[in-house]
Amino acid sequence: MKILEERIKKDGVVLEGEVLKVGSFLNHQIDPKLLKAMAEEWHESFKNEKVDKILTIEASGIAMASFAAYEFGVPLLFAKKSKTANIGDDVFSTDVKSYTHGTVNHVQVEKRFLNKGENVLIIDDFLARGEALKGLIDLCNQAGAHVVGCGVSIEKAFQPGGRELREKGYKVESLARIKSMNGQNSIEFC
Amino acid sequence: MKILEERIKKDGVVLEGEVLKVGSFLNHQIDPKLLKAMAEEWHESFKNEKVDKILTIEASGIAMASFAAYEFGVPLLFAKKSKTANIGDDVFSTDVKSYTHGTVNHVQVEKRFLNKGENVLIIDDFLARGEALKGLIDLCNQAGAHVVGCGVSIEKAFQPGGRELREKGYKVESLARIKSMNGQNSIEFC
Repeated sequence: MKILEERIKKDGVVLEGEVLKVGSFLNHQIDPKLLKAMAEEWHESFKNEKVDKILTIEASGIAMASFAAYEFGVPLLFAKKSKTANIGDDVFSTDVKSYTHGTVNHVQVEKRFLNKGENVLIIDDFLARGEALKGLIDLCNQAGAHVVGCGVSIEKAFQPGGRELREKGYKVESLARIKSMNGQNSIEFC
Repeated sequence: MKILEERIKKDGVVLEGEVLKVGSFLNHQIDPKLLKAMAEEWHESFKNEKVDKILTIEASGIAMASFAAYEFGVPLLFAKKSKTANIGDDVFSTDVKSYTHGTVNHVQVEKRFLNKGENVLIIDDFLARGEALKGLIDLCNQAGAHVVGCGVSIEKAFQPGGRELREKGYKVESLARIKSMNGQNSIEFC
């Protein structure tokens, strides 16, 4: 997606350890017009599939997934990273390791919101090793829901997550696929 | 806002301790059409004010604030509840106590995204004692930003937060104001 790639080149910041910071427009401060355009792009990719629900994980996925849910005309469900009073006791849960943050989150959704036979499109901001998407797929599997595919904003294609998911047969639509980045002004897209 | 009040009556669950659960449409599973309509309502309330940025707090505020940001055509900034690799070191921070969750969050935003003289509209899902809104106002004050007002989805008007903020001169637009709730099917609006 041209405008996303251009925005990453313009406003993304590459740090050591292959970290790409996009906090000025994607996951801390957010450009709603860009996210709406991304949602339209995912809708275009999955418009021939039956989608009953969008699933994402808090917090960075919520904004873009909200626009996607609006585009598809279906509810959005976001997996919570911790047990809060907002969530009931009857949950599907899974552990998601974050290499970026150096943490493991015990991620959960209420069982009543993820149902057998539902067609679920998973949305998230980043795909690197694929831990978050695999966790969300695991939640769907526990529920007996069908994973229609995954819509990703930025895929680090030099890391194995995207390849692994596609080899397993999942349709993964990444709007920007980074081939390599070795310091600022060195980002190359696939 | 009639459709929000009706939805709360239909799908909200009242628990002991004056807890209202709206996880089926507002803060775990989300109805994007409802949130878009809420955003339009806030836009109507604040359309004569200059709004440069929307500010909310993760995670429940993000979805509705995203639609609001789109409606106003301005960026959304969400305060983070913990230090992550997504956020830089140069931050404004404040402590926000959550009575619902029994926790204190050290909430922060990157300084470069909240600037002196900016006109900020704060959006959040609940207003009870007002801790989250007061924390977000504190971040704006630290930055020298101007708080245009607060857009809230559900105000527990029987708790003091809304009154205190209005007495301090803040314009608070709550789309549903609950006068009382004492068990299921007992919710009364102002």
